[in-house]
Amino acid sequence: MKILVLNGPNLNLLGKRNPQQYGSETLQSVNRFIQDHYPDYDFSFIQSNREGELIDAIQTSEADEYNGIVANFGGFTHTSVAIRDALETVRIPKVEVHLSNIHAREDFRERSVTGKMADGIITGFGKHSYILGIEAIKMLSDK
Amino acid sequence: MKILVLNGPNLNLLGKRNPQQYGSETLQSVNRFIQDHYPDYDFSFIQSNREGELIDAIQTSEADEYNGIVANFGGFTHTSVAIRDALETVRIPKVEVHLSNIHAREDFRERSVTGKMADGIITGFGKHSYILGIEAIKMLSDK
Amino acid sequence: MKILVLNGPNLNLLGKRNPQQYGSETLQSVNRFIQDHYPDYDFSFIQSNREGELIDAIQTSEADEYNGIVANFGGFTHTSVAIRDALETVRIPKVEVHLSNIHAREDFRERSVTGKMADGIITGFGKHSYILGIEAIKMLSDK
Amino acid sequence: MKILVLNGPNLNLLGKRNPQQYGSETLQSVNRFIQDHYPDYDFSFIQSNREGELIDAIQTSEADEYNGIVANFGGFTHTSVAIRDALETVRIPKVEVHLSNIHAREDFRERSVTGKMADGIITGFGKHSYILGIEAIKMLSDK
Amino acid sequence: MKILVLNGPNLNLLGKRNPQQYGSETLQSVNRFIQDHYPDYDFSFIQSNREGELIDAIQTSEADEYNGIVANFGGFTHTSVAIRDALETVRIPKVEVHLSNIHAREDFRERSVTGKMADGIITGFGKHSYILGIEAIKMLSDK
Amino acid sequence: MKILVLNGPNLNLLGKRNPQQYGSETLQSVNRFIQDHYPDYDFSFIQSNREGELIDAIQTSEADEYNGIVANFGGFTHTSVAIRDALETVRIPKVEVHLSNIHAREDFRERSVTGKMADGIITGFGKHSYILGIEAIKMLSDK
Amino acid sequence: MKILVLNGPNLNLLGKRNPQQYGSETLQSVNRFIQDHYPDYDFSFIQSNREGELIDAIQTSEADEYNGIVANFGGFTHTSVAIRDALETVRIPKVEVHLSNIHAREDFRERSVTGKMADGIITGFGKHSYILGIEAIKMLSDK
Amino acid sequence: MKILVLNGPNLNLLGKRNPQQYGSETLQSVNRFIQDHYPDYDFSFIQSNREGELIDAIQTSEADEYNGIVANFGGFTHTSVAIRDALETVRIPKVEVHLSNIHAREDFRERSVTGKMADGIITGFGKHSYILGIEAIKMLSDK
Amino acid sequence: MKILVLNGPNLNLLGKRNPQQYGSETLQSVNRFIQDHYPDYDFSFIQSNREGELIDAIQTSEADEYNGIVANFGGFTHTSVAIRDALETVRIPKVEVHLSNIHAREDFRERSVTGKMADGIITGFGKHSYILGIEAIKMLSDK
Amino acid sequence: MKILVLNGPNLNLLGKRNPQQYGSETLQSVNRFIQDHYPDYDFSFIQSNREGELIDAIQTSEADEYNGIVANFGGFTHTSVAIRDALETVRIPKVEVHLSNIHAREDFRERSVTGKMADGIITGFGKHSYILGIEAIKMLSDK
Amino acid sequence: MKILVLNGPNLNLLGKRNPQQYGSETLQSVNRFIQDHYPDYDFSFIQSNREGELIDAIQTSEADEYNGIVANFGGFTHTSVAIRDALETVRIPKVEVHLSNIHAREDFRERSVTGKMADGIITGFGKHSYILGIEAIKMLSDK
Amino acid sequence: MKILVLNGPNLNLLGKRNPQQYGSETLQSVNRFIQDHYPDYDFSFIQSNREGELIDAIQTSEADEYNGIVANFGGFTHTSVAIRDALETVRIPKVEVHLSNIHAREDFRERSVTGKMADGIITGFGKHSYILGIEAIKMLSDK
Repeated sequence: MKILVLNGPNLNLLGKRNPQQYGSETLQSVNRFIQDHYPDYDFSFIQSNREGELIDAIQTSEADEYNGIVANFGGFTHTSVAIRDALETVRIPKVEVHLSNIHAREDFRERSVTGKMADGIITGFGKHSYILGIEAIKMLSDK
Repeated sequence: MKILVLNGPNLNLLGKRNPQQYGSETLQSVNRFIQDHYPDYDFSFIQSNREGELIDAIQTSEADEYNGIVANFGGFTHTSVAIRDALETVRIPKVEVHLSNIHAREDFRERSVTGKMADGIITGFGKHSYILGIEAIKMLSDK
Repeated sequence: MKILVLNGPNLNLLGKRNPQQYGSETLQSVNRFIQDHYPDYDFSFIQSNREGELIDAIQTSEADEYNGIVANFGGFTHTSVAIRDALETVRIPKVEVHLSNIHAREDFRERSVTGKMADGIITGFGKHSYILGIEAIKMLSDK
Repeated sequence: MKILVLNGPNLNLLGKRNPQQYGSETLQSVNRFIQDHYPDYDFSFIQSNREGELIDAIQTSEADEYNGIVANFGGFTHTSVAIRDALETVRIPKVEVHLSNIHAREDFRERSVTGKMADGIITGFGKHSYILGIEAIKMLSDK
Repeated sequence: MKILVLNGPNLNLLGKRNPQQYGSETLQSVNRFIQDHYPDYDFSFIQSNREGELIDAIQTSEADEYNGIVANFGGFTHTSVAIRDALETVRIPKVEVHLSNIHAREDFRERSVTGKMADGIITGFGKHSYILGIEAIKMLSDK
Repeated sequence: MKILVLNGPNLNLLGKRNPQQYGSETLQSVNRFIQDHYPDYDFSFIQSNREGELIDAIQTSEADEYNGIVANFGGFTHTSVAIRDALETVRIPKVEVHLSNIHAREDFRERSVTGKMADGIITGFGKHSYILGIEAIKMLSDK
Repeated sequence: MKILVLNGPNLNLLGKRNPQQYGSETLQSVNRFIQDHYPDYDFSFIQSNREGELIDAIQTSEADEYNGIVANFGGFTHTSVAIRDALETVRIPKVEVHLSNIHAREDFRERSVTGKMADGIITGFGKHSYILGIEAIKMLSDK
Repeated sequence: MKILVLNGPNLNLLGKRNPQQYGSETLQSVNRFIQDHYPDYDFSFIQSNREGELIDAIQTSEADEYNGIVANFGGFTHTSVAIRDALETVRIPKVEVHLSNIHAREDFRERSVTGKMADGIITGFGKHSYILGIEAIKMLSDK
Repeated sequence: MKILVLNGPNLNLLGKRNPQQYGSETLQSVNRFIQDHYPDYDFSFIQSNREGELIDAIQTSEADEYNGIVANFGGFTHTSVAIRDALETVRIPKVEVHLSNIHAREDFRERSVTGKMADGIITGFGKHSYILGIEAIKMLSDK
Repeated sequence: MKILVLNGPNLNLLGKRNPQQYGSETLQSVNRFIQDHYPDYDFSFIQSNREGELIDAIQTSEADEYNGIVANFGGFTHTSVAIRDALETVRIPKVEVHLSNIHAREDFRERSVTGKMADGIITGFGKHSYILGIEAIKMLSDK
Repeated sequence: MKILVLNGPNLNLLGKRNPQQYGSETLQSVNRFIQDHYPDYDFSFIQSNREGELIDAIQTSEADEYNGIVANFGGFTHTSVAIRDALETVRIPKVEVHLSNIHAREDFRERSVTGKMADGIITGFGKHSYILGIEAIKMLSDK
Repeated sequence: MKILVLNGPNLNLLGKRNPQQYGSETLQSVNRFIQDHYPDYDFSFIQSNREGELIDAIQTSEADEYNGIVANFGGFTHTSVAIRDALETVRIPKVEVHLSNIHAREDFRERSVTGKMADGIITGFGKHSYILGIEAIKMLSDK
């Protein structure tokens, strides 16, 4: 399995921002946790604060023969029509994940613009959301 | 592991209602799929079209020593303050699941009243949403 | 013809509640009026203040070989996604009726959540709304 | 019985516009169907794309000794305060009808400005809506 | 005096749910407090998580010769048109009470659908809200 | 002075529609009252249920050398962008009048689409609103 | 005739504030213009920037045997429920006036909270609005 | 017990304004009723149409050693952020009361800006609302 | 090519209304400009202030063998469901044009009710919008 | 420099109300801090809980030869059209200040009705907001 | 003529994304079609998924002596205040184009944030929208 | 003191865009004005049209040992959740500034998404807003 793990703006600061909300682990540590969980998988871990780089990564993911995308678009989740449109062009399994339960926070976080074009959404399980996302890709691949 | 699987109104008709949205498998078949996936687990499968029965099941789940709740509240997801309040009283892991991606359908389905009191939400993976929900409970239990 | 006549919450108090709005006739009297109007028809008259019982009645109506449903969901009309979803599963003719003109009253009564899944709606003709509903079922059956 | 059957804008094109929504029968055919159904009744069939002509027809209907109005105001249903005010001045039975179920379509069609001043509304039964409307007038006349 | 004390969903868990909001006393203890306060009164204490049972209790209260209803509808307060309609049919004094000040919490709790049909509302005084509600019934009875 | 008195839809039925709101006098009687009040003035009294005829009358009023327009657009007041645009093209004094106080009725009547392009609005004084409108035109002419 | 002319906040600065909107005449000059127009009338001219003083003046106006009130509540027009309630207690003719056309300015000025309890509203004629207001009181007195 | 009874704008006209809503008793009579009900209590009855005077009375109430405030802010209830902020500074028991059921009237009266900072609200029991408010203060004092 | 050029209410006053918005050229001059630009084309220029006449023109355009419609519905653009429905019945190319950029003006002009049923919209280029509309029809015809 | 420092309702209780939001310093101490910071300046410190007194102070500030106004209108910031209109009449520099960041609190505090007529707004720096406000006045005076 | 053709996010995937909406032609093919249509023109074709690169291209377009901009901002059309502000700084002709009719799709696509600062908008004609955009620039240049 | 001065999209065009709103000075000139005002301070002046670059600059500011950030996010102020989240991770003083008074312009500019995470906001003083922002940082540093 070759899987693209996308993280959006400010997730590079995981462990630093609002720790009672997101925990104190860093993104590096989360990525290692994922890799350790699936030692035989081939992961690409991309984090970017730039909407355009995330769009590029999505657009090329199918040609690059990924089996699926697990993506946490951070603050872009709620506003980016452009990322939403990029997801629409890709036919591999796409799972949106969030560390915290977006339905239990501010109102503006309840709405997911990007998630409308994902196969499904997993929200609220901390770093385990990513693991569940990979499990979901496996299930979607078997269908 | 002892897990409570709750299904709300009309899920007893799974396979019959709107098959292009929900698939043609029945609830019995989905429950068997879950049990087969975890042969050693002790499941209670409760389906009810009555809000009060679902509230009762939630309220007694902790005393009944369940390790977690996986719940699909169907049409009550978007309206029931009473189920939301019931979830608030229970301290075992609670995961809300949906067969379809609720963010990709009618606007009124994007808002989850009950999900605000769950630990997390998994939406869009058909019967696999339940499996992912059980995996999530295992992860929440290990934390 | 075998027809299911469903009445929702508080319609058991017809003739007692707000008589200038709903008239002073009782539900028993209305049911008798319906039966007298169609002496050869086989009616089931179900009234319930419980959302779940109404859902059950809808769900089993097709298997019970009813030719159609005439339903006045009372206060559930404007809020129940669960009844709406139940109606979606049934393929026999379904007509929603109201005693008063729901468009001529409080704003919150103008919107019918359940009616979106009925074949049609008849509103404003007092007990005659039920008769017109049965006529509608006959016409829908002939199509 | 002398009955005024009013049809608003674009209903002269029935059978041509959006046939999967409205069916392929023409207005002439629908009118003939109505007349055939009530051979002894005296009908006036007026169709107009002009709001003012519809208002005129409503205003004079009582003086012209009609026993009732069956009206489908088409696109004016959702916007015309002027037609609504005209209906308010007429004391004969007034029934608003629609071919399709206006509650099951676009949001802007759910609200009926004109229907607030009708005795009742019948929606969703194709050409049978008109027949049910005439039955309703008979019932309103007997009250 | 014969008084009906109604408690809606999740109030059976009083003392367990969100104690900093509702205090740590149980419903049994609150009921005993009420009875002790009025040793000569005849109380019926009904708690139900089921909307329909609450409606039934309201509907029969007048025939059962209660002098008044003190009711805390919990999560149904903000959504139940059906309970609202049930209250409309009963002519004995009806007082809605809440443990916490519903105006000082989440926005969706500020609106009371059921309270529109009560004589008055008392909100924010913990278990004393019930005592004040009984005092209010006495005053309404003397008017 | 040469003054155009415009009356919109349903004002031809004045005295008949909703008399407790509008009084029982007819439009003919109101027009005579206006003429009698200003015996030396040259009035044109135009009533139409047709939006287009009202627009035509407005458009030609300046060329026809009227000194001002007193207009009650009835139900078009709240919806007609086209009448609003017509008023914008005319540079003689324009006064919008209403028989009843539009601020004291239904919410949708509080907003005047057409009045935004009048010099001023006079509302609530019955037939005297027209007299005050003519006085206003005299004052605007003297400025 | 004894008439109370009320002016609300900032009207004491007439002629100074935003002259292209309100003209360059002072309030003293406007009051003199009114008095000169009706030399035989007994006017009380009260201007206040204080909501409470305006309420007091309204409340005592009937006991003080005024024949009517002409009032421009300035910025309080759009917000003061208290002035609205005060007007409701007074049964002499009450006319709300505005110098500018409140329907042709910012959205928040289109809504008149206080005007709902006036007999009528006159808006847009500069100082002539007051004269028309006095004419309206005369007409209301004759009714 | 030393209690401050505050009444806001237009309550000095009780018995005069809208009697079918508020009854025909005067404020003096209500105050006497309160004093008679608690002959040993020390009451200060303050009524003011001025927001600032009400704020002053609230601000000094704690230093003046009142045991509690019973307040009916009239029309300021729905709009005054300043009174709300004043209540926030005072730590003695504060009960907001209303003569009529504010949830059963116009929409804009359902929202209480000031009540968010009261301990609780009692609404709908006429002059008895004040008595219940005093009872509530006693209960809050004993807690 | 045979093309129908429709202009709605007040466009007959082009050059007179709000010249800084719409320019000072008349509709006659614009029509001549169009004809001169396409000397070999057969144009019908219809302007009407009447919604019904515009609907009639649209309805018959296909039978009259026009190759396309270029339409500027003026104030009806933002409100007319009836014109929208008429456009839906016609299968020749339909282009909506506007002289000014409707997205750069008042909010209520940004929404086009009629444009939803056009093939496309061209807005903001003055009289050149019509030329571009004809070019668009040519392109649509070639597809 | 002669500067008017205006403080609105409840700022006289600074240090007492909600100290974790506003700090524990009193208004007297803040005023002394301001005066000490600018020993050569001539300050008038006015605090009032009355909207009208604040309006008066604003209206006379220009005639009283102040070089600028630094104003914190407290709860009136979000509601007072009358203060907004008063500011519009004064042409000396006007700076609105707030102790806390109004954008980071309740939604209703984000909107400033009064600030629309100030030259600028400074919000979030505690007592330093006043110092920055005075600096701003100096800069505006030099422009 | 030297023209800048800007395409925003995901337009590089034209022909791949949602072909029934956008057609199956690629962006390269569309660009070639444009160049072939105007063989003598000097085009710069810029596509970017990055908001900042589009802003840069707009900002420098005037200095780079382009005669006009034809831009399709894709998903940024509906959200980017920054692109809107960039367009405001450029005084050469600017035409916004869209392949599909944005008024006929999801609600959120009807509003164009960027289009408010364009000279005009052309929407709905597939690749021909670009040709019409260039024609529009020619016309704007001749004005 | 080492201070980061951030400017968002289109501020590189200061002096060119909408000069009556923003003045005619360039960003270079404003930066020089800031440096001249604080000759001993160490400034980094960063302007970017790219959301990601601004996020990067914010994220690294604390590690780069800046004493504070003065930021004008231009068009991103009203939409960027990602910048808002970045500010949340940084614990040095953060002041948002605007050249114009954002409360006195279009409605969409009144809301600051980014400002919710700043210590405070200074708006409306042209280039002096930056100076006041630096003063604010000094004050925040001394607290």
